[in-house]
Amino acid sequence: MGGDNAPASVVEGAVLAARGEPIDLILVGDQTAVSAELARHAPASNIRVVHAPTTVGMEESPALVVRRRRDSSIWRATELVAHGDAQAVVSAGHTGASMATAFFLLGTLQGVERPAIATILPTLHGNAVLLDVGATVDSKPQHLVQFAIMGQVYAQRMLSKPSPRVGLLSIGEEDTKGNELTKEAFKLLKQSAVNFIGNVEGRDVYTGDADVIVCDGFIGNVALKISEGLAEAIMQVLRREITQSIGGRVGFLLLRPAFRRFKRRVDYAEYGGAPLLGINGVSIICHGRSSPKAIMNAVRVARDFVVGQVNRHIREDLDRHMAGPVRN
Amino acid sequence: MGGDNAPASVVEGAVLAARGEPIDLILVGDQTAVSAELARHAPASNIRVVHAPTTVGMEESPALVVRRRRDSSIWRATELVAHGDAQAVVSAGHTGASMATAFFLLGTLQGVERPAIATILPTLHGNAVLLDVGATVDSKPQHLVQFAIMGQVYAQRMLSKPSPRVGLLSIGEEDTKGNELTKEAFKLLKQSAVNFIGNVEGRDVYTGDADVIVCDGFIGNVALKISEGLAEAIMQVLRREITQSIGGRVGFLLLRPAFRRFKRRVDYAEYGGAPLLGINGVSIICHGRSSPKAIMNAVRVARDFVVGQVNRHIREDLDRHMAGPVRN
Repeated sequence: MGGDNAPASVVEGAVLAARGEPIDLILVGDQTAVSAELARHAPASNIRVVHAPTTVGMEESPALVVRRRRDSSIWRATELVAHGDAQAVVSAGHTGASMATAFFLLGTLQGVERPAIATILPTLHGNAVLLDVGATVDSKPQHLVQFAIMGQVYAQRMLSKPSPRVGLLSIGEEDTKGNELTKEAFKLLKQSAVNFIGNVEGRDVYTGDADVIVCDGFIGNVALKISEGLAEAIMQVLRREITQSIGGRVGFLLLRPAFRRFKRRVDYAEYGGAPLLGINGVSIICHGRSSPKAIMNAVRVARDFVVGQVNRHIREDLDRHMAGPVRN
Repeated sequence: MGGDNAPASVVEGAVLAARGEPIDLILVGDQTAVSAELARHAPASNIRVVHAPTTVGMEESPALVVRRRRDSSIWRATELVAHGDAQAVVSAGHTGASMATAFFLLGTLQGVERPAIATILPTLHGNAVLLDVGATVDSKPQHLVQFAIMGQVYAQRMLSKPSPRVGLLSIGEEDTKGNELTKEAFKLLKQSAVNFIGNVEGRDVYTGDADVIVCDGFIGNVALKISEGLAEAIMQVLRREITQSIGGRVGFLLLRPAFRRFKRRVDYAEYGGAPLLGINGVSIICHGRSSPKAIMNAVRVARDFVVGQVNRHIREDLDRHMAGPVRN
């Protein structure tokens, strides 16, 4: 029921994800609305509907959702995971509600102090993982070290990077640059077994020099949203400039395939949802504006997360980190 | 002597700025090198050279510069301002060294607790001021309020915006969203006489909804650098995609004027340098990669800053803020 174009986009995305794949999907939400959407597509034996009478609104506080909205679609869907009736929950609704419900119903993996949302960024040389992009603000240095370990596992298991390079987002390359948080985290990361390449500046995020970029959730959220806003502004200005002349319009027609390839490369929909790492279960958070394709890819992220046993590997790597000894 | 292409770019920029303008320029640096560069241009009676035997390297620590590099070009140039022999200093060199020297030799304006670097961003609707982009990390809520007041004055005096809308960079529009710093700063800004429009999310920075965007120096620096990196990556990928086909190459030729207009709109060089606000004097910081045009524009920023009496207005507005009473 979540997202700007729900339930239509979500149902269509689920249908696309279920088609021909050995996967069982449960659509949680208003039975009538969801079934009506579902009826618009070819019948799929591996999709069923579970009723949830209410939906969380975008303006509701996550704390209230946990206390009072246990009949909502996000609560019911997460409950299915908590009870072992599903292996993952995917939502394009209220991010705070998804996080709070997952935190409350599933809890954190043993040893994890704070969860982190990991997003995938397209760079000039392959993809990179940026985390945290909004689960934990005002984080402590040791949280960033845990994010680094979780991000490393995610890059290994989901992006097929056997030894990802982990960078710390800061404002200068030297270890003495940064704020109190990053300077302390730098020291801890240096001593850890993480494949730490040092500080990464904002301008190096999109070069692909780091495979995993670690930061506080406030910073990561600003970085992600400003990137979205800038990319949109650039395309808008470019389009405006281009369509100002006939030559431009003809040129634009000739360039359309290039623009399309470009869009596919940077389109968030290609990368699907962002997992909430550190949770004792699988919760995938989608953009509110998710297209059916983005939902389909988010379901695939959920499947790969389960199949790749990301959580087991996170637990093992964290255990190893806690036990020491240290590499460098 | 500072910047990637010094002294050539700096000297050429100074020559461009001095041409036909009622302004006196002093080039501070190695007498021989600077004079040789100067000789490559038509003589200008309003440019003179002051010798400084050494230059600060990019790897030097700002604290060491203050203690040991008093024969360097940045120190000597800032000293001219401190002694009243110049009204502003402009540098494309080591940002930390510029800040430390200005802080040490000029001090802060009365009432200012921390300085802030203000940069101008092109948006979909006019320009906006973003501050702080790197002078003060780990700032306190009251520092952000001072940044808001200084940024407001800057937008009034330098961008001809009589009543600029001031936003706080955060991760949600509601006042309950953000980290500890922004939640506390939100309350203080609400109570202040600043024309405060509330939180601004990363994705709204480039829409032009706010004229002044306030944040901690770590956040602002990450936001600025990630924007630079992303814009560069987008143009690089687009160029790569475009030149892959003959149709694309022809289209690109037709689009060249549009791309050029676009580049001019987003080019940092159009906006010149970024002032270090809160200093008892005028210090303009330029990008290390400044072109002659960027240097010329930075000199103009310095001139407008002096002529517009930005510092007097900052002092007055701060005084008024400290005295209360409060508007809302």
